[in-house]
Amino acid sequence: MSGVSDPPPIMANNSVKSFFRLISSGDFLALYDGFDPLDSEVIPLATGLGRILAADVIAPEPLPPFSRSTMDGYAVRARDTFGCSESEPALLTVSGEIVMGQSGSELTLPPGHAAIIWTGGELPGNADGVVMIEYTSQPDSRTVEIFRPVAPGENVIRAGEDFPRGGTVLKKGQRLRPQDLGVLAGFGITELKVIRMPLVAVVSTGDELTEPGRQPEPGKIRDINSTTLAALVEECGGLAAPLGIIGDDPESMLAACRKALALPVDMVLLSGGSSVGRRDF
Amino acid sequence: MSGVSDPPPIMANNSVKSFFRLISSGDFLALYDGFDPLDSEVIPLATGLGRILAADVIAPEPLPPFSRSTMDGYAVRARDTFGCSESEPALLTVSGEIVMGQSGSELTLPPGHAAIIWTGGELPGNADGVVMIEYTSQPDSRTVEIFRPVAPGENVIRAGEDFPRGGTVLKKGQRLRPQDLGVLAGFGITELKVIRMPLVAVVSTGDELTEPGRQPEPGKIRDINSTTLAALVEECGGLAAPLGIIGDDPESMLAACRKALALPVDMVLLSGGSSVGRRDF
Repeated sequence: MSGVSDPPPIMANNSVKSFFRLISSGDFLALYDGFDPLDSEVIPLATGLGRILAADVIAPEPLPPFSRSTMDGYAVRARDTFGCSESEPALLTVSGEIVMGQSGSELTLPPGHAAIIWTGGELPGNADGVVMIEYTSQPDSRTVEIFRPVAPGENVIRAGEDFPRGGTVLKKGQRLRPQDLGVLAGFGITELKVIRMPLVAVVSTGDELTEPGRQPEPGKIRDINSTTLAALVEECGGLAAPLGIIGDDPESMLAACRKALALPVDMVLLSGGSSVGRRDF
Repeated sequence: MSGVSDPPPIMANNSVKSFFRLISSGDFLALYDGFDPLDSEVIPLATGLGRILAADVIAPEPLPPFSRSTMDGYAVRARDTFGCSESEPALLTVSGEIVMGQSGSELTLPPGHAAIIWTGGELPGNADGVVMIEYTSQPDSRTVEIFRPVAPGENVIRAGEDFPRGGTVLKKGQRLRPQDLGVLAGFGITELKVIRMPLVAVVSTGDELTEPGRQPEPGKIRDINSTTLAALVEECGGLAAPLGIIGDDPESMLAACRKALALPVDMVLLSGGSSVGRRDF
């Protein structure tokens, strides 16, 4: 499919093959696997959004650390509510209230007893369910009527239900989302080991290019690629180092690459110079 | 569906209705429409990723500013190639070369002529197509053989084809992507008018909460919401101002809101305090 003579006068650059020399995706992946991951750094939790974990995070304790109510209402022994209804409420004795931020396990429910509890409160000893306040009535300070039965575990999040102690919370290589940072806060993990952000040099090549801030001379256009590539690097979690525009000659390209690697950067993005023309190296 | 007596002893907070007072999405949108957009600010192009445009961007000039080749090859008058083939190539006279970064319009092709051109080069006068170098052969410096015809416009991006002068490039309210920043660079727009990033106070309420960096006492848990909400604010393009944990009492909540609004912040996110319990305000 080619009518190119070998070598045609237009192909002054003898080092260029008669068509694109591209590598296969397999070859690329082999090259890619030859690179080590970047080294890691320790950062404060609050700056972790979008960063890449450098190690698995293992739960140092169960989360939640104790069984908690997910509703405002009454902590009960679930069996004490079995069979109750609007017309035949269960009548339980109110033992007291689980005050928020105090240990619920200081209280232990005898049979037939209930304790006032708030969303997030620690269940008292022997309690295994919570009746929503909407399904109760308290005719006096010592008595509560329950209009709907609860099953054991209902309206309760059990100790370790989110993560048991020693469970894997987040995996090495994961990009951290808001909810990931939240769960780390829940474990008291306020510093993170993450992969360093790669520093990526961006170079535009082309004798026809002008800096965006300048008025191009006839036949020239403004450099679009540097801005686009730098923003793509940023979007991917890297730090872009735009090195500007260089001319269409191998000396400039080599000098730009040497300069970039001396910074040092982790990667150099060259745009241009990738076709079969005399100015492509 | 409620068995709540009115008022039951558990409902010590008389200002709270007997069930969630939520507003409809219509009421919310009406409230929301009552807020003016934030004011704008001018920022450098390179810091624009993810920001929200405060005004339409109108093309100050055509982009590209001139008709350009999208291939390395020969700029031709397309009609001079009609009917040619591998066995019967069109023979054209090489007028010269469009040197990159110089105006192609300095050259005008007479009938039967072609000019060497590179990707991105400006088409010479009268040229309306480009033959890829792969479908040509140049037996001597003055002659080129063309093995495949091109249609008018083929391998050419015409002046203003991306955006004509005066066309709308980007709309007010758009979130800027890497390619948007690139096109702005192409127009020489190096400063942008964008909406200021909202400053959002984040407050966690709850007597049961402990700062993530501290060991919780019995019955207490670490504050997860502040970290999660601050990261969500960041992810949405805002600036989070975490104000810490406050207790389950209306005085603390009011004081926290006053403090936040005095900063001043644009929004206060309170987490907690939104149920029917005695501690929900």
